[in-house]
Amino acid sequence: MRANFGQHFKLTIFGESHGPAIGIVIDGIPAGTPIDEEAVARQMARRAPGNDPTATARKEADRVKIVSGLFEGRTTGAPLCGMIENTNTRSGDYAQLRARMRPGHADYAGHVKYGGFNDPRGGGHFSGRLTAPLVFAGSIARQLLGHRGVTIGAHIAAIGGIEDTRFDPVRVCADELRALQGQRFPLLDPALESPMRELVEAARLEQDSTGGVIECAAVGVRAGIGSPFFGSVESVVSQLAFSVPAVKAIEFGDGSALSGMRGSRANDAMHMEDGHVRCLSNHNGGVTGGITNGMPIVMRAALKPTPSIGRVQRSVDLSTSSDVQLSITGRHDPCIVPRAVVVIESILAIALCDLAMDDASTHALQSETI
Amino acid sequence: MRANFGQHFKLTIFGESHGPAIGIVIDGIPAGTPIDEEAVARQMARRAPGNDPTATARKEADRVKIVSGLFEGRTTGAPLCGMIENTNTRSGDYAQLRARMRPGHADYAGHVKYGGFNDPRGGGHFSGRLTAPLVFAGSIARQLLGHRGVTIGAHIAAIGGIEDTRFDPVRVCADELRALQGQRFPLLDPALESPMRELVEAARLEQDSTGGVIECAAVGVRAGIGSPFFGSVESVVSQLAFSVPAVKAIEFGDGSALSGMRGSRANDAMHMEDGHVRCLSNHNGGVTGGITNGMPIVMRAALKPTPSIGRVQRSVDLSTSSDVQLSITGRHDPCIVPRAVVVIESILAIALCDLAMDDASTHALQSETI
Amino acid sequence: MRANFGQHFKLTIFGESHGPAIGIVIDGIPAGTPIDEEAVARQMARRAPGNDPTATARKEADRVKIVSGLFEGRTTGAPLCGMIENTNTRSGDYAQLRARMRPGHADYAGHVKYGGFNDPRGGGHFSGRLTAPLVFAGSIARQLLGHRGVTIGAHIAAIGGIEDTRFDPVRVCADELRALQGQRFPLLDPALESPMRELVEAARLEQDSTGGVIECAAVGVRAGIGSPFFGSVESVVSQLAFSVPAVKAIEFGDGSALSGMRGSRANDAMHMEDGHVRCLSNHNGGVTGGITNGMPIVMRAALKPTPSIGRVQRSVDLSTSSDVQLSITGRHDPCIVPRAVVVIESILAIALCDLAMDDASTHALQSETI
Amino acid sequence: MRANFGQHFKLTIFGESHGPAIGIVIDGIPAGTPIDEEAVARQMARRAPGNDPTATARKEADRVKIVSGLFEGRTTGAPLCGMIENTNTRSGDYAQLRARMRPGHADYAGHVKYGGFNDPRGGGHFSGRLTAPLVFAGSIARQLLGHRGVTIGAHIAAIGGIEDTRFDPVRVCADELRALQGQRFPLLDPALESPMRELVEAARLEQDSTGGVIECAAVGVRAGIGSPFFGSVESVVSQLAFSVPAVKAIEFGDGSALSGMRGSRANDAMHMEDGHVRCLSNHNGGVTGGITNGMPIVMRAALKPTPSIGRVQRSVDLSTSSDVQLSITGRHDPCIVPRAVVVIESILAIALCDLAMDDASTHALQSETI
Repeated sequence: MRANFGQHFKLTIFGESHGPAIGIVIDGIPAGTPIDEEAVARQMARRAPGNDPTATARKEADRVKIVSGLFEGRTTGAPLCGMIENTNTRSGDYAQLRARMRPGHADYAGHVKYGGFNDPRGGGHFSGRLTAPLVFAGSIARQLLGHRGVTIGAHIAAIGGIEDTRFDPVRVCADELRALQGQRFPLLDPALESPMRELVEAARLEQDSTGGVIECAAVGVRAGIGSPFFGSVESVVSQLAFSVPAVKAIEFGDGSALSGMRGSRANDAMHMEDGHVRCLSNHNGGVTGGITNGMPIVMRAALKPTPSIGRVQRSVDLSTSSDVQLSITGRHDPCIVPRAVVVIESILAIALCDLAMDDASTHALQSETI
Repeated sequence: MRANFGQHFKLTIFGESHGPAIGIVIDGIPAGTPIDEEAVARQMARRAPGNDPTATARKEADRVKIVSGLFEGRTTGAPLCGMIENTNTRSGDYAQLRARMRPGHADYAGHVKYGGFNDPRGGGHFSGRLTAPLVFAGSIARQLLGHRGVTIGAHIAAIGGIEDTRFDPVRVCADELRALQGQRFPLLDPALESPMRELVEAARLEQDSTGGVIECAAVGVRAGIGSPFFGSVESVVSQLAFSVPAVKAIEFGDGSALSGMRGSRANDAMHMEDGHVRCLSNHNGGVTGGITNGMPIVMRAALKPTPSIGRVQRSVDLSTSSDVQLSITGRHDPCIVPRAVVVIESILAIALCDLAMDDASTHALQSETI
Repeated sequence: MRANFGQHFKLTIFGESHGPAIGIVIDGIPAGTPIDEEAVARQMARRAPGNDPTATARKEADRVKIVSGLFEGRTTGAPLCGMIENTNTRSGDYAQLRARMRPGHADYAGHVKYGGFNDPRGGGHFSGRLTAPLVFAGSIARQLLGHRGVTIGAHIAAIGGIEDTRFDPVRVCADELRALQGQRFPLLDPALESPMRELVEAARLEQDSTGGVIECAAVGVRAGIGSPFFGSVESVVSQLAFSVPAVKAIEFGDGSALSGMRGSRANDAMHMEDGHVRCLSNHNGGVTGGITNGMPIVMRAALKPTPSIGRVQRSVDLSTSSDVQLSITGRHDPCIVPRAVVVIESILAIALCDLAMDDASTHALQSETI
Repeated sequence: MRANFGQHFKLTIFGESHGPAIGIVIDGIPAGTPIDEEAVARQMARRAPGNDPTATARKEADRVKIVSGLFEGRTTGAPLCGMIENTNTRSGDYAQLRARMRPGHADYAGHVKYGGFNDPRGGGHFSGRLTAPLVFAGSIARQLLGHRGVTIGAHIAAIGGIEDTRFDPVRVCADELRALQGQRFPLLDPALESPMRELVEAARLEQDSTGGVIECAAVGVRAGIGSPFFGSVESVVSQLAFSVPAVKAIEFGDGSALSGMRGSRANDAMHMEDGHVRCLSNHNGGVTGGITNGMPIVMRAALKPTPSIGRVQRSVDLSTSSDVQLSITGRHDPCIVPRAVVVIESILAIALCDLAMDDASTHALQSETI
């Protein structure tokens, strides 16, 4: 396992879907940072299940208990551990769960890796439920970034092939991003909510599921964050983004569309604007050479449809080494995309926090007294 | 900077385009591994410049000198350092290079990050030339993987909008991948070479450049490699892939197309085949839950067009804080894609090596005597 | 903070002495490992306070609740989180705790580092109470090592200047080490228990404290574990050992006494014994070139006296920037050494586990199919 | 192998004693730092062999060639690679070197770890020659620290049992440390040079060797550097110090002597002095709770005698699995201690640099704009 992420804003994730609790340890938060626990709760609620017809009926309050690292409302500088109890778990036939591999899930790959000892209840550690601790960590990262004028927001860029309009990568602003955060079904073009919901409902009725795309932006990020090579903004964001179950593609700026452009178009021309360097376009999504250039950061993550579906599927039973017909019962999300919006925002916040601190440490010996 | 990559097959990259040398230290190669230096040279030659009209005219032999970690043709278990001298460098007007920001390049972002002290000659450490050490590391990784029956190959999936056919993700095989390695302009549909070359030549004549897409596959990889969350195959591969200058999008399996599918299609049904579990389709590109499932691994990387173009561009001069018209002279690749094929293959090889060793260490206490 | 330790058996520690709980996340335990929770409890009891006149009167059950990574008695391969609730905490005058710096404690150094925001209650994250999670991690490491024939044990080598005899570094055996584990006041020469206890009691009556030395050995460790340079056995063990509050010196084998020897004596001559290479002496404590050589591993850790003492001490009040006379009230250990024996054993177990897995991963590509 | 050290001032070491070159990559040096190459050369000369009767007759200039990361005399922010060519190597009978295990050396342990593939020439990667790259890295660290008023110096605290006086841990000052740096045989009591040299010469004449102790201090280090637990100053310094071949014991402040003290003495009382908090004594060596407290940092490292001696020793031949009489020929140091003084200083400088940057990054979000 690689349960650790980050070099400065350091995460350690733990927990299983139906175990006693899930949680995360965050090491590296500056001491004395006030934590707004209501703001944390608001972010958690955006991901929490049971609140929308597109989502699973499993009800979880997803209240985070901060076990360490906080004293009188401020961080102590010691590792901050946030835990979320699993309350609404249901038992099942574990032997069958262990033997019958759900297509599209981690079941078979995980079975081989862990020799069949992985927790089979609700996907165990592979569960999408583990994104709750990431949203918690993201909510802390956003508070740190917010104090410096960074705002992050996202919208549903597509569901099942219906595409929302895209951010204007030059003019996207904090107000627009904050407004999106307040929506349960965030779209740039609100007229698309109905057809998208209908598409999801149609899938649900057919015991099927559907995927989608999330577009996320960060504004107010200064130039100079990130590194060439292994610590590029794209490298660190994508490492984290692909940690989210269901994400299968990531792009920055115009992304794959850049592959069809001429350099004369893809290059974002620069000019001086009120004494500051600015680009006239933002095909590169705010990142050049792996480093932020002061323009809005824009990225997209494509999510595959939830693999848990009620329809009969062909699969195998490892206990008998035979083919089986499988029908997954239980509570599932016909479309995970609306709940995943805050997860992708959190990913971007965490990555930017970690990279911004990296940058600071390299400058430390220039600006501080040892 | 984050010059280190990997937890087991550990890389440390160094060097600048016009400095004395570029290189890489690889720590974690098992002692006693025979290194085939001719095979290394063959991989290096696939990336080396000066061999094709689509590429820069800069001639570099890109011969790797192994400085440590090798004795009598076998690895010693100590870190292996491979160095490549820079021979064909040209001096320029550094002051101007430092002040005039090339659009689409790392120039401005790097200037802010490094306070203007980054090496301005040929892009310094940001240069695509630094992918040569990655190809070297990849050539070692491929030898390790090759002994275990893993074969990696890639083709030009698109250049400037002209798309090659795609791998059959279920039936792609070692022979097909090896055959691609032998081609200087690897395509599944060879009839596309002419139109693609014409498109590149047209861009070159207009002092412009063009991007493209590379599709890469690995076959023979056993199930069970990778981890949920931060060490998922997609996380580790993408962290490394986005280290490659110009890469702006990554997808696995059907990638972004999965976002438009129903779960009933995206889920790869499983069945028993000669006593082994196999999927009937491979929309997930050989990775589910972040872990390999025994099917071929398939990924695509989209590359933006080379930002160095001769055409006049709008930009800024930081020494005067004024707008300027910039025309980049020198030797450039009108299309980096053919040379980048081996780079993407190397990325996948390195990531799989690192993850496979991760897996081994967690099983170590089960299978070995301490 | 650097709350993470290890490259394979990876720890993340969290918690404060008077917060809701303390704990540790362990990542990298092989899936399917049976965990003997009674054996864990026995190790925890050896460190738990309130059981001996040399120790603090604070009563803590130190029962570990395993929150994740365990299913039906076996590890799942996912991160294992163990938590210990703090039950017997007492409130105090925090403002005063924050201002008045206890000599010998982390108070002042921590105040500067964390800008005064560190948790002042009971030393917060600096508390020796945080060694409880280390003992828990050590108890897991010992179970892993035990299956491979490794036994670890330690004794009180000195208290307040009274010295126990030392291990015979060639002949120390598993039975001897196991017998020591069963003792609350482990000594090689049991006749020293009375004078040592009297010395501690004398200190306690004078509201003072005393330090000591712990000698620890591991037998059954195969040759070939560890690395030259940064991953030497001594490097990894000492990094962890100096994490234990109060440890101020570490030595391996004959340690500092080696500095006064001739090479002809310090070099451990080798010979063949029943077909195996063995040393005739063990001045190097089982480690040469940073790597185990198959001989017993022997190390010693010197602990300073507990800084919490009732006697009046000169110190400063940061709220008034003035000198003060300070008398620490509350429950303290007049001598931490007996309770620290299991902590040092745990340190050695954790380090050996981590290093043994390191070794395995480098050999992985030789012995496994990727 | 674990060839990497550090989280901010990050090292990667490579090379073998008789290979083409040895070197180190340093990642994390702030861009724009002027490098004084003459100062580097002075530090390298202090460790270089062939300059003193206590040392090996092997002559090496140990000139460092900076291969990357430097442009026009200043660091670029990219990884800095320093290489040292091996010029004065002698060939030998490798087969014999591989089979006959030198007592006290890494030979046997390394043979087992690396399956006999480790480079046998001159100890390969295990050679003390690899401390040259550490001195180079230390010389860079010292320049960074020097700009902030930190001075590091050391003396020979003992050779073969003859003990120099110790630093006054409260009053040791920069001038005293700088004066020691200028000496080839640095002692606080210069009268001891003759008896110490005689003792070494006597060992040499008997084809034997002798060990010693080095005491090292750093002054001008501000309070607040380091962390509780795994990143304590003692943890990080000792991890690095035990990387140095021959080091077998480390202590901080009064070290092992603290184990015999009462708390009332070991606790360093504090008072206000010109508005600053200062300790009246410094038994803790400038570190409490793992964090610097503003007092001088004082540590000692005990080195065992060089294992390479001409005297006949009992050992084994692995090619025949038989006992042999071994006499090591070649050029050896009868006493490594004088040359190791600068190595220990370098260790302390590197560790402090790395930790100081750690501290900075945690404060980054408080003091900088993201």
